[in-house]
Amino acid sequence: MDTKKKVSLAVIRRLPRYFRYLSDLLQMDITRISSKELSARMGITASQIRQDLNCFGGFGQQGYGYNVESLYKEISNILGLNNDYTTIIIGAGHMGQALANYGNFEKRGYKLIGIFDVNPELVGRKIKDIEISHMDTLEDFIKNNKVDIAMLSVPFEQTRCVADKVAGLGIKGLWNFSPMDLKISYDVVIENVHLSDSLMVLGYKINEKLKESKQQKTIKTSKHSK
Amino acid sequence: MDTKKKVSLAVIRRLPRYFRYLSDLLQMDITRISSKELSARMGITASQIRQDLNCFGGFGQQGYGYNVESLYKEISNILGLNNDYTTIIIGAGHMGQALANYGNFEKRGYKLIGIFDVNPELVGRKIKDIEISHMDTLEDFIKNNKVDIAMLSVPFEQTRCVADKVAGLGIKGLWNFSPMDLKISYDVVIENVHLSDSLMVLGYKINEKLKESKQQKTIKTSKHSK
Repeated sequence: MDTKKKVSLAVIRRLPRYFRYLSDLLQMDITRISSKELSARMGITASQIRQDLNCFGGFGQQGYGYNVESLYKEISNILGLNNDYTTIIIGAGHMGQALANYGNFEKRGYKLIGIFDVNPELVGRKIKDIEISHMDTLEDFIKNNKVDIAMLSVPFEQTRCVADKVAGLGIKGLWNFSPMDLKISYDVVIENVHLSDSLMVLGYKINEKLKESKQQKTIKTSKHSK
Repeated sequence: MDTKKKVSLAVIRRLPRYFRYLSDLLQMDITRISSKELSARMGITASQIRQDLNCFGGFGQQGYGYNVESLYKEISNILGLNNDYTTIIIGAGHMGQALANYGNFEKRGYKLIGIFDVNPELVGRKIKDIEISHMDTLEDFIKNNKVDIAMLSVPFEQTRCVADKVAGLGIKGLWNFSPMDLKISYDVVIENVHLSDSLMVLGYKINEKLKESKQQKTIKTSKHSK
C-alpha cells in the first residue's frame, strides 16, 4: 500500500472519526460498506469520503465498496494506535481528574502511568490506582520511566513554564488544555485543545438554525397575506 | 457585506481560531495584518487564510492587508458571539465541574445558569455561586428559564436518555462530552466533543516525527559509511 505520500493534517483530523465508525461497523459484523452508506451514517458527503480515503491508498472498489476491516486496520496504523503510548497528567484539578477517569484513552493504547500536582490536599490521593504525586518528584519520574505524552491541565499562567520543563526532560508530546496555542522552543509535538472553539461552533449552528426558521416564518406569512 | 453565501462547516470550524488570534492582535494594538504575517503566527498557509476569509466577503486589500478590527467583528457576528446564550451543565462529576470552572465560556457570551446531577453528595454544593440542583427539578427549571444550551457530561449509558429529555423540553443546542456521536430525533443542534480524537492526532504527529528522525539517522549513517 502506498502511504508514503504526505497526507494533509485536515484529512488526519478526520481519521479518528472514520476509525470510530469503522470500529462500530466491525462490532456489528458489517464487512463491506459503500461510500454512500458510510456517508449516510457519518453525515459527511460520499465524495468527501472517497477523497479522504483515496489519500492513503484507496481501498474502495466500484460497486463493491470498502473492506471495513482492512480500512480499519490501515487507519489504526496511520494513527499509530498500535504503538502503546505512556502518558502522565500534570494538574489533578477537575479537568485532570476528568482525564484520568476517561476510559476511552486506555482502550486506544494510551496508558496513564502518573499524575502530578502541587496541591497538598490532592497529593497522596489515588485515582484509578494511581497515586497523585507532588510536582517535585516529576523530574525523577520522567528520568526513571519512559513517558511519551504529558497531558497538561494546569492553570493558564503556569502552562508555559510546566510545558518547558517537561519538554526539556525529553517528553515527545504535550496535550494542552489551557486556552492558549502553546508554542515552546523545544522539539516537542503539541496538540492544543480549545474547548471553547467547539462551543462557538455550536453557537454558530444554533444561530444559523434560528435565522432559517425566521426566514421560513417570513415566507409563510407573506404567502398567507397574498 | 455579502455573507448570504453558505459558508462550509470546515471553514466555520476554523473561525474560532481566527477569532482568537485577531483578539490577541487587537489587544496588542495591531490594526492591520497581511495574510503572510497572520500565516506565520497561526501556522496556516497564507493561501488557506485568503481562501477562508474570502468565503465571507474578503476584507483583504492587496499590499495593505486585513483590517483587524473589522475582521474580528465580522467573525464575531458569524459565530453569533454577540448573542449571549444561556447554558446549563447536566452531570456535575469531574468533567462537569471542569466545565463550570472554565472561565473562557462566559467571556464569549455563554452564561451558565444551572447545574444538575442525581448524586446526593453533589446536590446542594455550590460551584461559582451556582447551587447544584437535583435532576428532578430540571424540567421545571427549563420551563421557567430560557435555556439555550445543555452541556452534557453524564455517564455514557445515560447520555441518550438525558439528551432526549432536554431536547423534548425545547433546548436549542446540546454540547455532548460522552464518547459517542449523539443523534436524536428532536430538532436540536448537537456538537459532540471527542477528546480522544485530539489525542489520536497527537499520537499520529509523534509517530510521524519518530519516523522522520529514524529516516534522517539512516541517511546520516549511510553517508558516513560511504
